[in-house]
Amino acid sequence: MDVEALLFDVFGTVVDWRTSITSQMEVFGAENGYEADWAAFADRWRALYQPAMEQVRAEGRGWVILDTLHGENLDKAWAEFGFPPLEAGARDHLVRAWHRLDPWPDAVAGLTRLKTKYIIAPVSNGNIALITNMAKRAGLPWDVVLGAEVARAYKPMPEAYLRSAAAIGRAPGQCMMVAAHNDDLHAAKAQGLKTAFVPRPLEMGPGGGADTEPTGDWDLVADSFETLADQLGIA
Amino acid sequence: MDVEALLFDVFGTVVDWRTSITSQMEVFGAENGYEADWAAFADRWRALYQPAMEQVRAEGRGWVILDTLHGENLDKAWAEFGFPPLEAGARDHLVRAWHRLDPWPDAVAGLTRLKTKYIIAPVSNGNIALITNMAKRAGLPWDVVLGAEVARAYKPMPEAYLRSAAAIGRAPGQCMMVAAHNDDLHAAKAQGLKTAFVPRPLEMGPGGGADTEPTGDWDLVADSFETLADQLGIA
Repeated sequence: MDVEALLFDVFGTVVDWRTSITSQMEVFGAENGYEADWAAFADRWRALYQPAMEQVRAEGRGWVILDTLHGENLDKAWAEFGFPPLEAGARDHLVRAWHRLDPWPDAVAGLTRLKTKYIIAPVSNGNIALITNMAKRAGLPWDVVLGAEVARAYKPMPEAYLRSAAAIGRAPGQCMMVAAHNDDLHAAKAQGLKTAFVPRPLEMGPGGGADTEPTGDWDLVADSFETLADQLGIA
Repeated sequence: MDVEALLFDVFGTVVDWRTSITSQMEVFGAENGYEADWAAFADRWRALYQPAMEQVRAEGRGWVILDTLHGENLDKAWAEFGFPPLEAGARDHLVRAWHRLDPWPDAVAGLTRLKTKYIIAPVSNGNIALITNMAKRAGLPWDVVLGAEVARAYKPMPEAYLRSAAAIGRAPGQCMMVAAHNDDLHAAKAQGLKTAFVPRPLEMGPGGGADTEPTGDWDLVADSFETLADQLGIA
């Protein structure tokens, strides 16, 4: 394979958003006197993610960054859970919980190995500030931040993949999309990218619901970034 | 100071473009039978840089990346030196000479120290692919690639600074522009950024011509990135 760059989905693939959001909400609730099933809150907040992006992708809403959508979705989920409106500082703190997600245990070590041979870049729907703050806190050693804000298009729109590849001066076939989600890989493959499926069985929690089996003919399937590095021949 | 991010000019400040372009042209000339004063060629190629960007900044030309301008300027300088047109592969190889510039001796070590405390990002007129390839080859440890292509504006336009700061979610005053060029710092300061002047006396060659003295009241003046790290209290 003529691959020069590995492009990574982030939420779920690199970081464990559900555990991180749940634990940050638990701390916030305890410190501020709110009680709820915070894992259920995290799930509800995340469930509003795709519909919000669909407003931008297909319903004529102008471009807005994911922080903005996370804020609007927080307001909705917060009200659904029966709480009064958040004051601005608390709301901003919680929106930025998505900047403070913890990586899966193999992520930093695996990315560090993969970086020795490939350009490694997030191609996430997260905005540049979110991805940069997350990387700085978690030690994710990206070469360059690509994705929705650079492409001005949310995945799985073709432009999100094509403009990310073009931004680093690579043909789609010189890029490999790495994701825990089959739908992301189907969309990337349709634009000519190579594909690697790294399932994260616990992404949606202990009750299941994550993609565990490949639904496409992906170029690689690995159970961690370390295994992916092995498969790509990196010592 | 409330600085969270250091934003770097690249050509001249981080990398020694003149020595690198000259030596690559010498190799190309020797391998392909062209003779010239290649340092003079490098100077001429670089002299066409500001006028070409001015077409985009002020003369109504639509957005194009710097690789495109570098190619057009190469064609002009090459013809001025009396050579016949380059074939496409050679032209592309030479355009990408700007992706293969060597850093000043203190740059990698200094950036590595500065990264321990700050977000470090290029805010260059170079396009994302150029800056990414350069960083990968030279070991420049950027946290995120900002600059002209992300901002869709060439320095010293205000948007180049303001949109770079906004992209990482920082106010202008939380960012410090680091440059070897007074004009870059004047433009950054006018938008509210902090400023650090790191003169590179040999940027224009042994005959002088580089900025050696501050022409503004910059927050910091340092003779290298290592000294800058010292001044910022980094061990």
